[in-house]
Amino acid sequence: MKKKAVIILSGGLDSATCMGVAQQVGYELYPLTFDYGQKHQHEIVHAKRIAQHYQVAEHRVVKLDFLNQLGGSALTDPSIEVPDYAGDDEVPVTYVPARNLIFLSLATAYAETVGAEKIFIGVSSVDYSGYPDCRPEFIASMSETIRLATKLGAEQGMLQIEAPLSHLSKEDTIRLGMELAVPYELTTSCYRGGDKACGTCDSCELRLKGFAEAGLVDPIPYV
Amino acid sequence: MKKKAVIILSGGLDSATCMGVAQQVGYELYPLTFDYGQKHQHEIVHAKRIAQHYQVAEHRVVKLDFLNQLGGSALTDPSIEVPDYAGDDEVPVTYVPARNLIFLSLATAYAETVGAEKIFIGVSSVDYSGYPDCRPEFIASMSETIRLATKLGAEQGMLQIEAPLSHLSKEDTIRLGMELAVPYELTTSCYRGGDKACGTCDSCELRLKGFAEAGLVDPIPYV
Repeated sequence: MKKKAVIILSGGLDSATCMGVAQQVGYELYPLTFDYGQKHQHEIVHAKRIAQHYQVAEHRVVKLDFLNQLGGSALTDPSIEVPDYAGDDEVPVTYVPARNLIFLSLATAYAETVGAEKIFIGVSSVDYSGYPDCRPEFIASMSETIRLATKLGAEQGMLQIEAPLSHLSKEDTIRLGMELAVPYELTTSCYRGGDKACGTCDSCELRLKGFAEAGLVDPIPYV
Repeated sequence: MKKKAVIILSGGLDSATCMGVAQQVGYELYPLTFDYGQKHQHEIVHAKRIAQHYQVAEHRVVKLDFLNQLGGSALTDPSIEVPDYAGDDEVPVTYVPARNLIFLSLATAYAETVGAEKIFIGVSSVDYSGYPDCRPEFIASMSETIRLATKLGAEQGMLQIEAPLSHLSKEDTIRLGMELAVPYELTTSCYRGGDKACGTCDSCELRLKGFAEAGLVDPIPYV
């Protein structure tokens, strides 16, 4: 029987690359997508297309109304505008409180139910927006917490987080993805969530920079 | 301004005691209740009554359909029966995958949004059902993970878990609660979720034993 992995799949470039990495390792893929009222709702459509591309057995989309109702982030709160890329050290207003903590916790429950031994998440601490829950020290601590929290972890030491992009720049992530034939034309990254990517938000900025540095052309349409 | 605390309030005896402890310390109370399709749905009604008793500013009830859809636990899956108390060392079938991990993660997002500095959870490692996510090592690891995951934690070292019952037996919890005038008549503990408590499931067994050892009579009705 093939070993199983849960992949947190947003529809973006990084999580699509994780799908490619996990498939390459030989895992049966169980992507998990979260609908938390993000302005970039089209993410979910893209996540579905990516899941389809990889012919996964099951793709769950989990509605998280609570995170939406809490507000306080430019990504979910209509009253807060998504800013252009600033490039400073501050945690930006696009920060969603405890997002990766929540995603990984729900992925843990799912992994334990389907019997997966890994949870893949596409965080990077190199080219990123400065969110605390993307740092390697968070991922390491969370992995240990998951081991202690679960029956699978407590009894068999199984169930770990894999963050294969953790130390990769966007350029290196894209190079890796191209080698693995990740369908980047199916991905979406823009925080503003229009039909075409805006090209100026944090996320677009990092993506475009990555493709440029890799000497490649981003296959998705921009405004 | 009063300091704020989020309290994970199930409607049971332990979380009600946490309300009493947090109030005693002087916190403004922000109880958070989860509706995850548990058979003991009347828990939520009881949680509301307890919140009302403490005259809280806000009581959020979060629907977690996903945990319900996953199944695999006697507490949420209609096809698995709640067993009588066994008293062995196995993780029982009433275990809900990653439940406290998920509850604490969502409580973290809530705490960060309202600006609370503590999250109270009524876990105990003395008289408990043997769930891995009730152990002090899980709570300690999760507290550190939360510090690393959040803006509040990363920037100010704030936001910690308080588990005031962690090392208390059920007897001692009840003694503490009686001192704090916790309204135990408003609480419910039975896993089977009938109008009257069954008196024979794990949870009823532990509760009845606690009252008996404290030399007190449990004020709620039993079958």
